[in-house]
Amino acid sequence: MSYERANIREMTGYASGEQPEQPDIIKLNTNENPYPATAAVAEALRNCRVEDLRRYPSPLADRFRRTAAEYHKLEIDNIIPTNGGDELLRLVITTFANAGDTLAIAEPSYSLYPVLADIQGCKTARIMLGEDWSNPEDFADQANRAGARIAFVVNPHAPSGHLNSSAELSRIAENFSGVLVIDEAYVDFIDPELRYDAVELTRKFDNVLVLRTMSKGYSLAGLRFAYGIGAQSLLAPMLYKTRDSYNTDYISQTLATAALQDRAAAALNWAKVRAERLRLHRALSEMGFYCGSSQSNFILAQIPQHADALAGAERHALSLYQQLKSKGILIRYFDQPRLRDKLRITVGTPDQNTQLLLALRQLLQTSTD
Amino acid sequence: MSYERANIREMTGYASGEQPEQPDIIKLNTNENPYPATAAVAEALRNCRVEDLRRYPSPLADRFRRTAAEYHKLEIDNIIPTNGGDELLRLVITTFANAGDTLAIAEPSYSLYPVLADIQGCKTARIMLGEDWSNPEDFADQANRAGARIAFVVNPHAPSGHLNSSAELSRIAENFSGVLVIDEAYVDFIDPELRYDAVELTRKFDNVLVLRTMSKGYSLAGLRFAYGIGAQSLLAPMLYKTRDSYNTDYISQTLATAALQDRAAAALNWAKVRAERLRLHRALSEMGFYCGSSQSNFILAQIPQHADALAGAERHALSLYQQLKSKGILIRYFDQPRLRDKLRITVGTPDQNTQLLLALRQLLQTSTD
Repeated sequence: MSYERANIREMTGYASGEQPEQPDIIKLNTNENPYPATAAVAEALRNCRVEDLRRYPSPLADRFRRTAAEYHKLEIDNIIPTNGGDELLRLVITTFANAGDTLAIAEPSYSLYPVLADIQGCKTARIMLGEDWSNPEDFADQANRAGARIAFVVNPHAPSGHLNSSAELSRIAENFSGVLVIDEAYVDFIDPELRYDAVELTRKFDNVLVLRTMSKGYSLAGLRFAYGIGAQSLLAPMLYKTRDSYNTDYISQTLATAALQDRAAAALNWAKVRAERLRLHRALSEMGFYCGSSQSNFILAQIPQHADALAGAERHALSLYQQLKSKGILIRYFDQPRLRDKLRITVGTPDQNTQLLLALRQLLQTSTD
Repeated sequence: MSYERANIREMTGYASGEQPEQPDIIKLNTNENPYPATAAVAEALRNCRVEDLRRYPSPLADRFRRTAAEYHKLEIDNIIPTNGGDELLRLVITTFANAGDTLAIAEPSYSLYPVLADIQGCKTARIMLGEDWSNPEDFADQANRAGARIAFVVNPHAPSGHLNSSAELSRIAENFSGVLVIDEAYVDFIDPELRYDAVELTRKFDNVLVLRTMSKGYSLAGLRFAYGIGAQSLLAPMLYKTRDSYNTDYISQTLATAALQDRAAAALNWAKVRAERLRLHRALSEMGFYCGSSQSNFILAQIPQHADALAGAERHALSLYQQLKSKGILIRYFDQPRLRDKLRITVGTPDQNTQLLLALRQLLQTSTD
């Protein structure tokens, strides 16, 4: 007999990127940071003892919250710690949207959003992004017309790396009647000279929730620690009601705190990733791929099309993905509209990127021979 | 403006036991194991490197699941890993109960259940436990009459420590039309001579979910790692649809696996806890408290009543709790029906228990002077 709710029975689960266990694979498919966490984080880990795990952790990760609040010049009740960014996304939906409500989702973006909507029994309104993956000018109007309770925007956008300015996001926040989630999973890789800052929006608007994670910029994907930033009134129901009572563990709290305190050291790695992003972008463009500008740690590379040969480009993209995989290089291929003729490539170490470019050049050579 | 759902706005959050940061407190209030995790777990922690955290963890904790499946003589799809037991309880509700559905809850028991019901917008049917905290004979009938989709039983029972036999649970599983959750958070402290085994029920019934945690028996409350055991058909929607995609982290997976493999060493601590439980039970009884038999790592001690002086016993219990706290000894007082004249005391180390008994004796002496 099957006991699950009807909407769960009918839905399809989230398909995460492949996580192969072989250490020798060149893994450029799930946007991990190519460099390990900094020395201060390593030391914090070495100082953890099993004796520290005997008791329950701080329910609200107060030491981490104090550190994050100081960093963002906010109060601790403007910070909510979560077991990875996914938990925060789920919490937002279960806290602010009833079954039957509508969620607005930039399309294409993180494929987990519609899965979380399905779990809660919510409908989705897909808001089509522009040719350059920017949010449409009437994003808020479209979301309001759909009656959306929550709207999700990834910035820098995934899977393209396109950056919306905080002014554009401010306009959406001001005009949207529901909760605006700005998923900043990749914020650390933005060029600092752009002076992007969406956290300031949480001071002006009580409907803005900014998501930050330690997974990417801080090289701690294996640790599962993220946090949300927002008005106290917005966070309170999640902090004090819907969050699992001990949702983050002692070690992740300790390491996340150390990582945030040592962010100047992590920033050296972000600069290295930006330098390699530029090199990769140039090399891919020279090879004939079209790559939009990326402010993230990945590049979306479009296979060149001749006339209306989209189907050919799509076949070619899939085939390149598969051939790279057989050579031990994993990148990401999305079987969905607007993405089938593209490859998403995480920026790796200089050596990994060189190997990827070499392999790609060989494959393109062979296919034109 | 307030954006949360109406049921969230109206509900009250879960109040967890106090988690003071001072290390010198004698903490007998949230049922932690008094002994740290074993040497094998300490070594597994020492072997964790920040390099291991750069990548995402195994989404389903496959190494842990193989270990647990082998231990329980089941398949890996009979095991679901979760971020503490609380996550599994939440998952069960969001997967199997729609808003408006009813959940059957043994009363009194873990006060988180009704909070989780509120979050999902579910109703609760409280099933009153007997005088000795045993499940009523017609538990399944009561739950069925209430139309419950899920029923929650803690075994050994909390906050009393009473153990229901697996035969009794089997009768409930057989007759209940919904999903029966057997929360075995404290199972490791049961006297092995009793040969209690409810995991066998998951082989016979497709509606039984057994919850196990590494928090108590394995001294890893700070780590947040638990797991569910059940039929593949029961676990599949949680494993592949409703669970957060990376719900447990690399370190907790690694340490939980090491702990389960080293359970023979942990069992030496369980025996020590049982020995102290007996000593505490005897000493409290001699002091005039009424304590039922406990198969857990805590004792529920009832203040002696004279005639119908319940109110006096309740005042006395609260006052003892407060006075112990002012002496640096934390135990648990529940301000709810049937529990207000009782104190729940976690079994500590021999020295902690001796100090508790000394302090209690002094306080009782003073109050009768």
